[in-house]
Formats: sequence, C-alpha cells, structure tokens
Amino acid sequence: MAQTLFILNGPNLNLLGVREPEIYGRETLADIEAACRAEAEAAGLALRFHQTNAEHEMIDWIQEARTGAAGLILNPAAFSYAGYPIYDALKMCDCPIIEVHISNIHRRDEAWRANSIMTAAATGIISGLGTHGYLLAVKHIRKLRGA
Amino acid sequence: MAQTLFILNGPNLNLLGVREPEIYGRETLADIEAACRAEAEAAGLALRFHQTNAEHEMIDWIQEARTGAAGLILNPAAFSYAGYPIYDALKMCDCPIIEVHISNIHRRDEAWRANSIMTAAATGIISGLGTHGYLLAVKHIRKLRGA
Amino acid sequence: MAQTLFILNGPNLNLLGVREPEIYGRETLADIEAACRAEAEAAGLALRFHQTNAEHEMIDWIQEARTGAAGLILNPAAFSYAGYPIYDALKMCDCPIIEVHISNIHRRDEAWRANSIMTAAATGIISGLGTHGYLLAVKHIRKLRGA
Amino acid sequence: MAQTLFILNGPNLNLLGVREPEIYGRETLADIEAACRAEAEAAGLALRFHQTNAEHEMIDWIQEARTGAAGLILNPAAFSYAGYPIYDALKMCDCPIIEVHISNIHRRDEAWRANSIMTAAATGIISGLGTHGYLLAVKHIRKLRGA
Amino acid sequence: MAQTLFILNGPNLNLLGVREPEIYGRETLADIEAACRAEAEAAGLALRFHQTNAEHEMIDWIQEARTGAAGLILNPAAFSYAGYPIYDALKMCDCPIIEVHISNIHRRDEAWRANSIMTAAATGIISGLGTHGYLLAVKHIRKLRGA
Amino acid sequence: MAQTLFILNGPNLNLLGVREPEIYGRETLADIEAACRAEAEAAGLALRFHQTNAEHEMIDWIQEARTGAAGLILNPAAFSYAGYPIYDALKMCDCPIIEVHISNIHRRDEAWRANSIMTAAATGIISGLGTHGYLLAVKHIRKLRGA
Amino acid sequence: MAQTLFILNGPNLNLLGVREPEIYGRETLADIEAACRAEAEAAGLALRFHQTNAEHEMIDWIQEARTGAAGLILNPAAFSYAGYPIYDALKMCDCPIIEVHISNIHRRDEAWRANSIMTAAATGIISGLGTHGYLLAVKHIRKLRGA
Amino acid sequence: MAQTLFILNGPNLNLLGVREPEIYGRETLADIEAACRAEAEAAGLALRFHQTNAEHEMIDWIQEARTGAAGLILNPAAFSYAGYPIYDALKMCDCPIIEVHISNIHRRDEAWRANSIMTAAATGIISGLGTHGYLLAVKHIRKLRGA
Amino acid sequence: MAQTLFILNGPNLNLLGVREPEIYGRETLADIEAACRAEAEAAGLALRFHQTNAEHEMIDWIQEARTGAAGLILNPAAFSYAGYPIYDALKMCDCPIIEVHISNIHRRDEAWRANSIMTAAATGIISGLGTHGYLLAVKHIRKLRGA
Amino acid sequence: MAQTLFILNGPNLNLLGVREPEIYGRETLADIEAACRAEAEAAGLALRFHQTNAEHEMIDWIQEARTGAAGLILNPAAFSYAGYPIYDALKMCDCPIIEVHISNIHRRDEAWRANSIMTAAATGIISGLGTHGYLLAVKHIRKLRGA
Amino acid sequence: MAQTLFILNGPNLNLLGVREPEIYGRETLADIEAACRAEAEAAGLALRFHQTNAEHEMIDWIQEARTGAAGLILNPAAFSYAGYPIYDALKMCDCPIIEVHISNIHRRDEAWRANSIMTAAATGIISGLGTHGYLLAVKHIRKLRGA
Amino acid sequence: MAQTLFILNGPNLNLLGVREPEIYGRETLADIEAACRAEAEAAGLALRFHQTNAEHEMIDWIQEARTGAAGLILNPAAFSYAGYPIYDALKMCDCPIIEVHISNIHRRDEAWRANSIMTAAATGIISGLGTHGYLLAVKHIRKLRGA
Repeated sequence: MAQTLFILNGPNLNLLGVREPEIYGRETLADIEAACRAEAEAAGLALRFHQTNAEHEMIDWIQEARTGAAGLILNPAAFSYAGYPIYDALKMCDCPIIEVHISNIHRRDEAWRANSIMTAAATGIISGLGTHGYLLAVKHIRKLRGA
Repeated sequence: MAQTLFILNGPNLNLLGVREPEIYGRETLADIEAACRAEAEAAGLALRFHQTNAEHEMIDWIQEARTGAAGLILNPAAFSYAGYPIYDALKMCDCPIIEVHISNIHRRDEAWRANSIMTAAATGIISGLGTHGYLLAVKHIRKLRGA
Repeated sequence: MAQTLFILNGPNLNLLGVREPEIYGRETLADIEAACRAEAEAAGLALRFHQTNAEHEMIDWIQEARTGAAGLILNPAAFSYAGYPIYDALKMCDCPIIEVHISNIHRRDEAWRANSIMTAAATGIISGLGTHGYLLAVKHIRKLRGA
Repeated sequence: MAQTLFILNGPNLNLLGVREPEIYGRETLADIEAACRAEAEAAGLALRFHQTNAEHEMIDWIQEARTGAAGLILNPAAFSYAGYPIYDALKMCDCPIIEVHISNIHRRDEAWRANSIMTAAATGIISGLGTHGYLLAVKHIRKLRGA
Repeated sequence: MAQTLFILNGPNLNLLGVREPEIYGRETLADIEAACRAEAEAAGLALRFHQTNAEHEMIDWIQEARTGAAGLILNPAAFSYAGYPIYDALKMCDCPIIEVHISNIHRRDEAWRANSIMTAAATGIISGLGTHGYLLAVKHIRKLRGA
Repeated sequence: MAQTLFILNGPNLNLLGVREPEIYGRETLADIEAACRAEAEAAGLALRFHQTNAEHEMIDWIQEARTGAAGLILNPAAFSYAGYPIYDALKMCDCPIIEVHISNIHRRDEAWRANSIMTAAATGIISGLGTHGYLLAVKHIRKLRGA
Repeated sequence: MAQTLFILNGPNLNLLGVREPEIYGRETLADIEAACRAEAEAAGLALRFHQTNAEHEMIDWIQEARTGAAGLILNPAAFSYAGYPIYDALKMCDCPIIEVHISNIHRRDEAWRANSIMTAAATGIISGLGTHGYLLAVKHIRKLRGA
Repeated sequence: MAQTLFILNGPNLNLLGVREPEIYGRETLADIEAACRAEAEAAGLALRFHQTNAEHEMIDWIQEARTGAAGLILNPAAFSYAGYPIYDALKMCDCPIIEVHISNIHRRDEAWRANSIMTAAATGIISGLGTHGYLLAVKHIRKLRGA
Repeated sequence: MAQTLFILNGPNLNLLGVREPEIYGRETLADIEAACRAEAEAAGLALRFHQTNAEHEMIDWIQEARTGAAGLILNPAAFSYAGYPIYDALKMCDCPIIEVHISNIHRRDEAWRANSIMTAAATGIISGLGTHGYLLAVKHIRKLRGA
Repeated sequence: MAQTLFILNGPNLNLLGVREPEIYGRETLADIEAACRAEAEAAGLALRFHQTNAEHEMIDWIQEARTGAAGLILNPAAFSYAGYPIYDALKMCDCPIIEVHISNIHRRDEAWRANSIMTAAATGIISGLGTHGYLLAVKHIRKLRGA
Repeated sequence: MAQTLFILNGPNLNLLGVREPEIYGRETLADIEAACRAEAEAAGLALRFHQTNAEHEMIDWIQEARTGAAGLILNPAAFSYAGYPIYDALKMCDCPIIEVHISNIHRRDEAWRANSIMTAAATGIISGLGTHGYLLAVKHIRKLRGA
Repeated sequence: MAQTLFILNGPNLNLLGVREPEIYGRETLADIEAACRAEAEAAGLALRFHQTNAEHEMIDWIQEARTGAAGLILNPAAFSYAGYPIYDALKMCDCPIIEVHISNIHRRDEAWRANSIMTAAATGIISGLGTHGYLLAVKHIRKLRGA
C-alpha cells in the first residue's frame, strides 16, 4: 500500500490567489494541490492535502501523520508565531518535515514574521520561493526516498 | 550567449565531506558542483561555481553578478552572521538570489546561527535539506526562467 | 441592499456582565448588541453581531467581511495577544476596522495586556470607554459613510 | 454655573491642516474646536479649548482642571513620549480623562510612537479615528454625565 | 449533590504514553483518570475529566467550572505559552486551581517552556513529578475541603 | 538501616507562622516537621529536618545528602534567586530533589520571585499549595520508592 | 556677603499638600521653605527657594548657581526622567548638589520612577524621608561648610 | 529678497566657552555666529541665529522655518534625547536640515548621548568637529544651493 | 525602658577608613558609631551598632529588630545586589528602615552598583553624603519619634 | 616633505555612481578623489586615496597612517558594523580621524546601519551630506592645521 | 620573612575529585595543594591554601591578603555569579590576583556560568585548563616576581 | 617526525610592542615567538608561529592544523568579536585549543571586548597575564602530552 504524504496549510491560505496577490501571487491552493499531486503520484505516494483555520484540526492531521508517513509538508502561515501545540505535535512525528512559506518571512513588514517557532521542529525550511516551494518540498521528499 | 548562474560558497565549505559529517553529510563540494552543472546546462545556463574563505573574494564575485546574471545561489556559511559588506553587495544585484544552508540553521547548538543577515537581501532561502538544497535552488532559477 | 456592519467579540465576552464586573461593568453583550443595532439601523446598515471563544470562527467571520462590508468592529479580547491568524485575516479587509476594548488595556495588572497585535491592522482603537466604546465605533463608521 | 470641559492640544497641533495632511488630514484646530463647542454646549458644559507648544503651559491648564471639571480631553501629540510632568499632573485630576490621537499611533513609522506614557493616567484612549476622535470623546463625557 | 472536580488536559495529551515516553512516561491519560477518580470519589466529589486539542473547548469547560466547583486541575500542555483566552477564563473561577505539568518545565530543551502564563492565574503549580502530580493535586483539593 | 530523607529550609523560615501570615499562613515550621515526620516514618525513612539563614550550612547539609539519600525536599526561600553555590551542590546529588514554595512564586509582588534558579537542578517543584506542599513532596518521595 | 543656597523644586510641587497626600504628605512648599530658611540663616547662608513647571526656568536658576553657590538642593520631581538639559546644567555647577525626593522613588507604582537621570550629576540623594529630606539636605550643606 | 538660513542652538549653549571647555572648547556662541554670518552673507543668505533653553521657543523658530527657508542648522544639545516635539517640528520642514554637535556624541561618558532622536529627521549630521562643524554646515547649505 | 535603634553594616565596612579612602573617606566605623551614639542617646534610644561580612548574621540582627524597634539603619554595602534573604528579613520589620550608602551608588564605575534591591523594602535612602549620611538617618528616626 | 592625508574607502564603494544612485548619488569615487586632491594640494598635503573590499588591506593602510600623518578620512561603508580589527587599528593612530558616510546612516531601512563601531575611535563624523562630506572633511583637516 | 601566596577555593570544591568528574576531573584539592606548594616553595613563598563554602570566610581571607601578599589565586566557583562582597574585597588588594576555573566556563550548560563578576577585579583569568590552571597561576606569580 | 604546535596571532598584533604599550606591554611578537620556540623545542614539537590581519589567512592555517596537530594557541585579537568563520574552523580541529589574550578582556574600556566568540570553541582561555600567557599555554600543551 502506498505511503502517505501530508501537505497541510494554515489559516487564511484558503484565500490564496485573492489575498494580497502582490505578496502571495495569484495561484490558488487548488493549483498547488494539482502540481503536488502529480509529483506525489509519480513518486508512488498517496497525498493528503488540507487547509484549516483551526489549530486543533491541524493538530489532528499531524497526529495522524505521527508514524509511518512518507513526509509532512507544512505551511503554518500565521500559526508559525504562537502555535506551540502544533510544534509539540510535530515533535512526535517520525517522518521528514518541511516547512514552506510562500513569501520570504525575513523581508515582510512585521518584525515578528521572521522567526517561525515551527522551524526548530522541522527537518528544513523553504521560504520565499513562491508557490513553487511546495513542489520543491515534494521533490525533496521524493529524493529522500530514492523515488 | 548563455546567461550565467553563480553558485558561491563561503568559508570552510572547501572541507565539505570531511567536516563534521554528522551535520553536513559526506558529499563534497565537487559532488554538488557536478549535480548543479548538469541541471544548469539542461537549462542553457553557464555556471560559475566558487568557494572562498575570504570575504573580499566573495564580494568581487557578487559584483560580477551584479547585472544580467541568471541567478545567484549563495551558501554564505559563517559569513551569514557578520558579513555586512556581502549583504551590501547582494543588494546591488538585479537577479534572483537564493540563500542555501545545508543544515537547518534553526536547530544548531549556537543561538547566533538561527538568523542570517543575508536573508533580508535574498529572494528566498532553503535551509536544512542537505546538499540537495543546492539542486532545488538551481531548479527554482530554471523555473523562474521558464526553462 | 443594505451594506453589512460586523461587530465581532472574542473569548469570554459571552460572560460579560457577570465576569469581573469591577473591570468590565454589568452590561451584557445583549445590551451592547441592542444599542449598536439601533444605531446601525439608523445608518441604514445591516448588523452582524457575533461572539466566539474559537479563533477559527473569528477568522471565518472576518473572511466574510473581506470585501464590501461597511465596517468591522472588533473586540478581540484575549485574542489580542497571540492571535496572529486573526491579524492576517484583518489585513485582507477593505473596510474600516475599529478595535474596541472595554477596559483601558494600559491600566490592567498584566503587562502583556497593553499592546494588542491587532492595532497595527486596524484603522483605529477605542480603549477604556466601557461598553459605550462599541456605540462610538458604530457612530464613527456612520460618520465615515456620511450617513 | 456650568461645569467646564477642557480640551488641550500639544505641540505642533497649531499647524493642523497644513502639517503632513496625508497623515493628519486637512481639518484645522479651529474646525475641531467648533464641532466640540457645539456638542459641549448641547451638554450644558463650558468649553476651554487650548493649544500649546510649551509643556509648562499644558501643566498649568491641567492643574486648573484638577478638581471639579466635567472632563479633560487631551491630545498630547509628541508630549506623549517624554512628558512625565504632564503625566503627574493628570494623576491629580478627579475628572474623566480621554486621550485622543488623530492618527493610529500603532501604525506610524517611528516605533516610539506606539506607546504614550499618558495612557496609564487616562480613563481611556481613542486613536486613529481622525479629528472625529475629539467629538467622540466629548460625546463620551456627555454620556458619563447622563447629559 | 456532590460538588464537581474538573481535571482538564491540553493538546497532544491524548497521546500520553506513546508520545516521547522518555520525557512523559508510559502511563496513559486513562490510567491517570482512573487514579484520580478513585481519589475524588473517596472525597465525595464528582469528577469531570477531559482532554482537548482545541482552545475553545478548554475555555468552555473552564466557564462551566466558573462558580461552585470543588476545584480545577489543569495541565495546559502547550496552551501554557500563548493561551491568553484560557488565562482570562481561569481568572473568572472562584474555586482553587492547580496547574500540573508532568515534566519539569524548567529543564526542557526549549527556553520558552519554563514560564507558563497560566501560573499567575492559578492557586499553585506542581511540575516535574510525573503523572503522580495529578493525584497529588486531587489530594490537595481534598485537603482544602477537609475531606 | 533506614535511608534518610532531608527536608531543608532556607532563610527566614524560622519565623514561619508569625511572618506575613497573610502570605505564608499561621502554621510553624514545627507543625510542618511533625506532619512530615509521621509520613516519613510510615515510609520507613529517617528524617533530617533543618532550617538555616546561612548559605554555607545549607550547602553542608546538601553535601551530606549527596549519595544514598532517599530524597531531598528543599524550600530555598530567598536563596532561590542568587544561591548559585546551592545550585551546584544540588547538581551533585543522586537522589530525587523536590523544590517546595509555600506561596505561588508567580503571583508575588516582586518580579524576581517568579524564577528560582534551583528548579533547573530539581526533579520537580510544588509551589503555592501552602504548607501542605511539604507533605505532598514527602508522599511523592514515598511513591517513587514504592513505599 | 553671604553665600547663596539654592533650593529648586520641579513640576507640580506647587500643589504639595493638596496633591496625593497619602504619598506626599500634607505639608506645603511654604512649610518646607520656612523650615529650610531657618536652618540656612543659622548657617549664615542666603536662601533662594523656587518652584517651576517650566524646564527652562529650572535651567536658568541652575545656571545662576553655576559658580560660587554654597549648595544646590534639587527636587526634580518628574523632570527626573527626561530632563537631560537640566542634567547638563547641573554638570556645570561647582557646588555640592543634593537631590531630594519626598517619596521613596523605588517603591512607587510606575517602574520608570526608580531611576532619576539627575543622580549621576549630583553629590548625593535623599529619597523617601518625606519633606524632612529637604531639611536634612540643608544640614548636610551646613556640615560640609563646617557651619 | 534673500532667503533665510536658521541656526538654532539648544539648552546651555549660551554658556559655550565657559562650560566644560575641555569638552566644548573656548569659543563662544558669538564667535560662531560671526563666522557663520560671514559665510551666509557670502552666499547671499539672511541669517537667523538663536539660542534657547526652552523647548517651545525652539519649536516656534522651526515652525517659522517650515516653508521656504534656505536651510536649518540645529545643535539640539540635550534636547537631542527626549525632544520629540522638536522632532515633529523638524519633520514638517521642506528645507535641508543639518544637525551639529560640537563634541563627538559617541565618545562621551554617558551612554545615552550617542543617539540623538533628531538625526532621523535631519538630512545629515556633523559631530565632533568642534565649533568648526557649524561653518562646515553653512558651507554645505551653500553647496546645495550652488551658491 | 529605652527602645532600640539598630545600625547594621555590611561586608568590608570593617575596613572603612583604610579601604579606597578616595571613595569612602578616612573616617572609621568607630567614628561613625560614636557620632550616632551621641545622637541616639540624646533621643533616649539604646543603640545596637554592628558590622558583619556574613549574610546570616545580618539576617539574625534584622530578625531581632523585627518588632518594637525604634528604627533600623542599614548600610548593606555589597549585600545590596544579591542579598534577597536580607530583603525578606527587612520586609518583616515594623519599624522605619533607612538605607545608607556612603558613596553615591549612581556614580560608581560598576553599573550594577546603581540599584540596591534593599531600597524597595526601606522607608527611604540616603546615598552619597559620606559618613554624615548615618547621622542624618539617626536624626530622621528621631524626627519621626518627635524626640 | 609634505605630510600625508589618507582617504580610505570601504567595501562596494568601487561601484559608487552605479550602485543604488537614489541613495548614494551619481558621483564616482574618481570624482571624489579629484575634488579632495585639489583641496589637499591647496593645503600642501600629499594625498593617498584608496578603496578596498578587503578588511586586511584597510588595516594595512591604517597602520601606515599610524604616526605622523596629517589626517585620516575613512568611509568604512559596511565595515562599520563588524570591523573590530579596523577599530583597533584606528585606535593606534595619532592623527585626527574623520568618519564619513555619504547617506545619513540613521535614516536607512536597516536598523543596524545607525551605529558604526568606528565612531568611538574617530575624532568626529559627517553623515548624510552626500559626497560633499569628503570635501568638508578635508577642509576640517586643513582647518586643524591652520593651513 | 617569606611573603605569602594565597590560594583560595570557593564552595563545593571540597568535593573535587568525586564531584562530576567528567567535568572537573579526578584530582582532589589535596593534589592541587601539593603541586602548588612545591612550586611556591621553589619561589621562596609561604603558601596559604584554603577552601570554604562560606562567603564571609572567603572575605576574611582576602582581607588578610589585602596588603603585602605575593599574590592571590582564587577559584571562586559558584561565588563567581553573585558574590559582590567578594568582589569588593578583591578591589582592596594590592597584589596580583589570578582567577582560576577548572572547566571552561564558556562551554558549560548554564548560560550564567560564562561571566564571572570577579574577572573585572582580577589581573587575569585562566579557565578550562583543568587543575593544571592552578599551577600555571603560581608560575605566573613567580614570573612577576622574577623568582 | 615531530608533531606541530600552531601559534596564530590576529590583526594588529604585528605592531605589538609599539601599540598602546600601557595596555599590551613592550615585548614584540618576535620576543614571544623566541620564548615559545624554546619551550616547544624542549617538548619535541615543531612550531608554526604566524600573524595576519586577514581572516582568510587565519582560516587557512587553522585548516592546516585540523588533524594531527599537537595543539593550537590562538590570540584572535579583534577577530574575537565577529570572526564566525574562524570559530567554524576551530570547531573542526581535533587538537587542544588555547585562546590567549594579553590584556584582561573583562577590564577594557569597550564593553564588547569582554566576550570572545572563540571561547566556546576552545579548550580553555588565558587572559590578562601579559605576553607570559603564550608561554603558559605552551607549557599546558606540553603538560597534556606528558612531555
């Protein structure tokens, strides 16, 4: 049976494409999902792709990914800055975790955006490469699996 | 004539593969260069791949990349933390700049490693994805060019 | 069709009137709603008045108010201090946003109460004028519309 | 005899209307005074409306308002950040004190503008609602008096 | 009718026993509930024992405990660090509140774990005594009641 | 031969019962000793119960407890904030160490009371449960021993 | 001709005796002046005793005291916290300078009251001894002169 | 008609030449005025040269210079550190503003002297070049005008 | 029977007169004791005058002064900066407490000397008036007693 | 033989005129050198004018200027923020040192630009007066020499 | 008569050799004393070698060394971090003072260990060279004496 | 073949003996080299003794010492404060590393001198023992080798 790759998206990303497009671009979450699904299938992975504005829902999905997943790609969005329960959930996972931010969080207006508390629980981070960052993350999971 | 892609490597990366392999892995800089060169060539780009322990040499290369380059991929290594002249040189470039760190700089022992001053002058950052991060960066330059 | 004015209330405000009345007074949320509804109707506005203890529900309402609302009046209560996802939702709105706090958040016992992260996403703030602050906020929305 | 309402304005507000109108608007202090005077008279209050660039003059007026005034509305302008003697004067007053800022002091370029030391001595604060904030403050004084 | 004792557990504690057992031990939440229930019954108290990953659900339970409860024992887990709405809910309760942490939060790797914002709203805290801390907390509630 | 349990009390605790009883209660150190002695005896432990105003005397006792003791219960009182030599002595002990504070050190007037440097050298902490905290600590030692 | 002793009083001290008497007592500035004048005369000193709410007036008096004065006793009141020009004026004086505060500035509610910038320019400070502090300061000037 | 150049001097500079000459030198303000007047006249500029110990007088002069002046040279002296109202006045001016300090404010004993809040509102700063700094500033105004 | 006045001196003050006389002067502790004894006797007070290098001895004396003393004059010397147990002892006393420092602790080379933690437990402080500060403190105790 | 004046330029200044001209202007380093050379010659000084991107080269030149130079004018550019070895070299020089920055370093986007560590080793600083600052610095050296 | 060399050891060093040997090694204090005594005798110095857990005893010994000693070698151990009275005692000594730490205090787990307050009162420091550091310190005293 | 001992000296140490001799003494680097060479030869070690003002040259030498050296003695001078690339190079070495500073870096005028970032990568540090510190470091290397 195919292993599962989780791609989880935090608050307000449901509006991607219409929200501040000069920062986040015009691609929608559905566009991203389509691109990632193709790459995941090529790697023989089952994809679970979700978005939520609720911290507890994010925690539930991460708990599902806790053991045996192929990988977990997380765009925590604004959960990055006070989402300690999510951090704790990530710490329990045994798969590679890649944090993705569409914009470069070190070049935003608000000083607090520069440091995500999630990064210390992740394998690595891709930030500022636009929506392409998701696809690069899937490619990296694939690389790690030799797929 | 082919546009040039610069991949610049900071201090002590000449020892990659032998230096703290539990952190940085066993691949050498030559291995990375070979992988990137193949990808760059596939994109029709000329590759300049350099390493230096000297800040001024790094600045000189960045000044060469100032106008008209296809992209600049920089692993600033320990220049990340006090290399203000490099930051200033980066600010003058008109091409996309991707900062790459082999290890996740948010999970290292020293607190000062978490924040690179270069990130505010870069388009984006890839950190913690091992030497594969370089290749993903080249792929992103390629994506930006539609190549 | 009448434009909509949103008045959104954060956690624990459902207990207004019984909770620490020496700080928050004895008026209930229903009292506030009644006063605001009268003023809104006089201005020809449809009123949506809600309270929630759940951050995601607050985000959902703000997303509904994202375009074309007459105004958004927000008492974020304790969401003020770590509610980054709400901040991000507010940044997407094109209507005037007024933050209201019943007590003067600069005179409370806890130092962390003094600075709401929401204020940087709001048009303005009214703090310490009791429940009357809500009504003044509605009046200001009305003023802005020349109604 | 009518009780007195004080509206006191700090430094550089004499130039309101001509000074940085993109921030402070084009209404002059005389316009504000006229609007407030009408509202105060409707409430049966005598109005004292002043502006000064001198801290000591501001202190003198606050000392006059120390006992028995109907209310004190203060736009401390740049006195907000080092005007400790004004703070001490405010602490002696037995009437409600409302601090008004025309712009939202949490959204200005200078970091030091966000926190006024006066707020801890005031009943409440209205910030960012333009010159209308003065009128709302007078309305609140009136509300407190049941007038 | 028996008074109620609330024991409330924060995010990720549903996985107690399987999650990082070198830190949190191998006892499950069901084990803890059983031990506490015995002690509570011996004291003539009705026990409500809950776990949630959702902040709003935690707030709802605390609001139920607001008046007339025998006591509230709270393991806020990662809510400890940004759960201001929970803090506000706790402040409204008239019963003794005991904060319990299974591990010693002053000896964890992450610096931010050392200070829980809940402690300032609690009667006291037990930290680092493993799952036995829950039982000691119940004993203390019993002691306070002379039961 | 019975193993020894140490209960060590820091400065000014000799005046417990007469000192600020609104904070520390009216029980004396002798009362505490009696309650703990009964519990210790039931567990088959020899009890050493001491109080001192002298840091060096505290260090001497801890050095005696360094190897082979059943447990060490410490109320460091005001030694908590600059008693680095005591911290070093605690680090040498091989038995469980429980720090006890009668009042909740996170709710005292002085900000420096909130963080005891001892906690990082202790197994756990009980704070704010009054003099009962001592007894709970003894019970925990007993629990650890299966006694 | 008799040398001059200056006693200078900062903002709001004109209201001494009526202002927050639970902090500052019920003695007026005239009472203090009378007590000091008697002591100064006994020492053969001419007394200049002033109060002002204006920083520049305070500076002018200090400039008069710059050379040849017997001493300068200063209660800077709220000038203590941002009165850098007064600090500079004090630095030019060649006589002993004693800073006096009626209340203990380390026990006031506002944290900023604890450190007066003037103290670094003064010979010494008396704080918290009520209005008697002025008289002790005059006695000290007298002592220094052997009068 | 000749345009006006303003040279404004802050508190205690009236004593220049006698005040701490080892820091500020022995030239008086009259000497500086004479040198600047000659240079200004050579440039065809009318000179207004003032000194004050009163912040409000400084503000008044800056307001006069608000539009149409040739330049404003300001030695804010100790107003540099808390003179926010002066900063606001400077922000309104449309002419070049040069801040001058006689001594090098980064080499003074007091740490707070190093950063003047005025610099962020000025075109540039000359610090540490003695009284000659004024003349250089006038020369720069002249250069800017091509005079 | 005469009430007792305590004058307690902290570490290294036994060497007063020989220790850094350019800072502390040439008077010895015996000189100070003699002067204070005369003043105390004139006030009908019994004097206890002590010096110690041991914190615990200082605590013991303060505990003796806890109830019914006429006053406590304390030169904590270097205990001022980490002597939390002494602070706690002072908080228990019901008599006036005057902290005395011979030198002005705001003008010493070491930054940490400026703030004594004892001041928050004292009635007031005299600092920088040399050894005369002790005598002024005794006079103030006398004044408080009307003696 | 003519004494030597050194004008030393730090990293990236070789690109002056083409680099961010909206900040640094369009004059080149050669233009600056020409203007300074004329002024230096008029003062009878030999000029050494250099630029480097290498810290060690900068140090070497400063060491040459260590004794007997007429003056040293330094635009440290981005060496200003971490160039401690340059600071040490400057401290050894016996000639006047003037630090020059073309832009006003207090008005740049990056907060770290505001404070140059070099300033504490310099006689004075000129910042924000464009390339004219160099010439003013030469004039000041000339003034100091009475040339 | 031979001059005296003092070697003073702070708290818990009596357990050297048994305490955390992976950090402090297995040599005992007696071993160190023997090695130092041989070196001291070779230099014609009388040796006083002491250890204490009591700050006051340390102060007494330093006061004995105040004048005329050959040198003072101090391992302050945990007194390094809050031992202000010891610092004051050291400041009175006229002989060379060498601070010795067995482990490298910059590489310990606790951040507070890195900076000893004693260092600012010492001639120099040797840290991290194990127990050999004592002997090197004696050699340095000997070198200073030309012995 | 003899193992190699590296002694590496940072910027400006080429001027030792002439540079600020009141701080660094009058011995030259050649004097130090001679003394160390004698001691190294006695230990059967080959000595490499270098000085550079260039960070990259320092890195190159440290890379040469990476494996198999007898020891590395480093006086980083002003590289101590921002030389992160040197720190990284040191971390790769498998020999003992001793950091030497001629002056006591905790007693220098500049606050930033107190903490060298190199210390966390070194075995130990000798600071303030003058040029003799180098020789003591060689002796310690010898001791470690039993030579």
